[in-house]
Amino acid sequence: MSTIKPIEWKNDTVILLDQRKLPSEEVYITYEDYQAVADAIRNMVVRGAPAIGVATAMGIALGAQGIGVPDYFSFAERLRAICETFRATRPTAVNLQWAIDRMMTVLDAHQGDNISDIIAALKTEALRIYDEDLTTNQRIGEHGSAVIVDGDHVLTHCNAGILATAGYGTALSCLYTAHAQGKEFRVFVDETRPLLQGARLSAWELAKMGITPTVICDNMAASLMQHGQIDKIIVGADRIAANGDTANKIGTYSLAVLADYHHVPLYVAAPRSTIDMQCATGKDIPIEQRGHDEISHVGNTQLAPQNAEFYNPAFDVTPADLIAGIITDAGIAHAPFDEGLSELF
Amino acid sequence: MSTIKPIEWKNDTVILLDQRKLPSEEVYITYEDYQAVADAIRNMVVRGAPAIGVATAMGIALGAQGIGVPDYFSFAERLRAICETFRATRPTAVNLQWAIDRMMTVLDAHQGDNISDIIAALKTEALRIYDEDLTTNQRIGEHGSAVIVDGDHVLTHCNAGILATAGYGTALSCLYTAHAQGKEFRVFVDETRPLLQGARLSAWELAKMGITPTVICDNMAASLMQHGQIDKIIVGADRIAANGDTANKIGTYSLAVLADYHHVPLYVAAPRSTIDMQCATGKDIPIEQRGHDEISHVGNTQLAPQNAEFYNPAFDVTPADLIAGIITDAGIAHAPFDEGLSELF
Repeated sequence: MSTIKPIEWKNDTVILLDQRKLPSEEVYITYEDYQAVADAIRNMVVRGAPAIGVATAMGIALGAQGIGVPDYFSFAERLRAICETFRATRPTAVNLQWAIDRMMTVLDAHQGDNISDIIAALKTEALRIYDEDLTTNQRIGEHGSAVIVDGDHVLTHCNAGILATAGYGTALSCLYTAHAQGKEFRVFVDETRPLLQGARLSAWELAKMGITPTVICDNMAASLMQHGQIDKIIVGADRIAANGDTANKIGTYSLAVLADYHHVPLYVAAPRSTIDMQCATGKDIPIEQRGHDEISHVGNTQLAPQNAEFYNPAFDVTPADLIAGIITDAGIAHAPFDEGLSELF
Repeated sequence: MSTIKPIEWKNDTVILLDQRKLPSEEVYITYEDYQAVADAIRNMVVRGAPAIGVATAMGIALGAQGIGVPDYFSFAERLRAICETFRATRPTAVNLQWAIDRMMTVLDAHQGDNISDIIAALKTEALRIYDEDLTTNQRIGEHGSAVIVDGDHVLTHCNAGILATAGYGTALSCLYTAHAQGKEFRVFVDETRPLLQGARLSAWELAKMGITPTVICDNMAASLMQHGQIDKIIVGADRIAANGDTANKIGTYSLAVLADYHHVPLYVAAPRSTIDMQCATGKDIPIEQRGHDEISHVGNTQLAPQNAEFYNPAFDVTPADLIAGIITDAGIAHAPFDEGLSELF
């Protein structure tokens, strides 16, 4: 297991590794206020679908501690408002909704109980979600490592690693497990514009875990495939529809089309909590649009003229027919995914 | 015609707009020394195949002025050394070789003449190359504007505009001419990592020319195509082989595959001087590999960890069968390009 702790519950506070400052600085921020945790999710101090789920659960537990009313009805009303604050932070990752549902179920189960007992139960549930995520990701790694063979050139996009989860990662857990099994392979990392989670985060954690990454710009992947330099692609997911359509970081669909053209298999790795069986197809997944500054500036450097317009979707949807397999904690689902995904539950 | 002058010969010096500083600053540098012009090409103060050709010719004329030997043999030897300095700056753009050949032909034609006459003839040739480039690009614009229709959404990559030429541009000249004809269309610009010539240069000059650009990250083009938001793609070229295979800025091949999948036509626009009939196919085109810093840093901001590896090809090669047409100063060539390109000469 890694020693990188992107999220931690400690002394009744939430500690987050500030991912915006990586790879230059490793800064941890302590949160005592749920509003600040919600802001951290919105501003991407923490990001990645599973990590957003864990941070949301811990944020709600943190909020519960500070409500300070003695009766169940008022407490429940305040807790629901706290949940709504988290629900509004980011629309695409289903794990956020899922974590809120888990916490609300605890609230409902303790109707009429002592407020201090409910607060304790909410904290326990948040820590359980954290622990479950670690176990889940180890299982994803066990299943997914089977697709990696000696000599492989594997490409990944964005960060579906330790930093996107409580630990171990989803897509990258397949590589970490394969590495621990002694398999030798090479990893290419798309830098992943605009926020560069590939260059900044995946490259950083891969190097820390003993796998030297080769960073490329997003527009170089096709050229590598053209020259037979990519054997497989593994990415994470922010939401998987019941038919297998997958929302993930912008650029994933681009890779999927390129992979199809070059006969390179593309795998999606995610916990079952990322599968939204209520979502029939990718058309039902809301896609977050983000601000212009993410494209127009890097640090203090202006990259485009002030009078330009910008288009900045945070995610795209890859149709199921471009996906070779969905690697989960309960095994690898294959097409047809309607059946394959149902069988996992 | 635009008022942007990326390259100028003035008072026996070469003036270059420093494209590395755009869009934040519009800085012009005066060069009195050919070595500095060669460095400017290498360091991409000036870039783009036609502009590299013009800057090379002017740089050689500048170098000729400073040789200061009275006999033809010594002068010719020194001039050849100057040409070799330019030849070594950047390997992919064929216009550089072509400009050197033009200047060497002038030298050979004046064997035994007065050195001052040869210097004057070299200067005249450089200015002729400059003027020819302007005329050529206007013709490309006239031919290429025919493919643009009202309501089009056009995507371009990198900068094949005014800044990549003596003026007017190649791919962008098609848009400028269509705009002057009153056609209404929308232009999307790939930012074009790592050096961001799309965001920094194309967006800047399009806005100056009255066309508001929408800048996207390279990995967003596929998503736009998936949603039917791109009707055609126009890019430039650094070298076109006799069979139509085209070397252009890294990411062009990626766009070509994505365009093919989405049934979007991709056009290449370039002067005939970019067509290398000595190059049978794209396999014969040398691809420049550039330094890691271009990917790992933007301005002072570090984007990837120090211990990562990088892969940074400046160009890729798009096979002819993914190209809908090659727009030149002598008309638009279509497949089969072996015949189509030959007919242009």
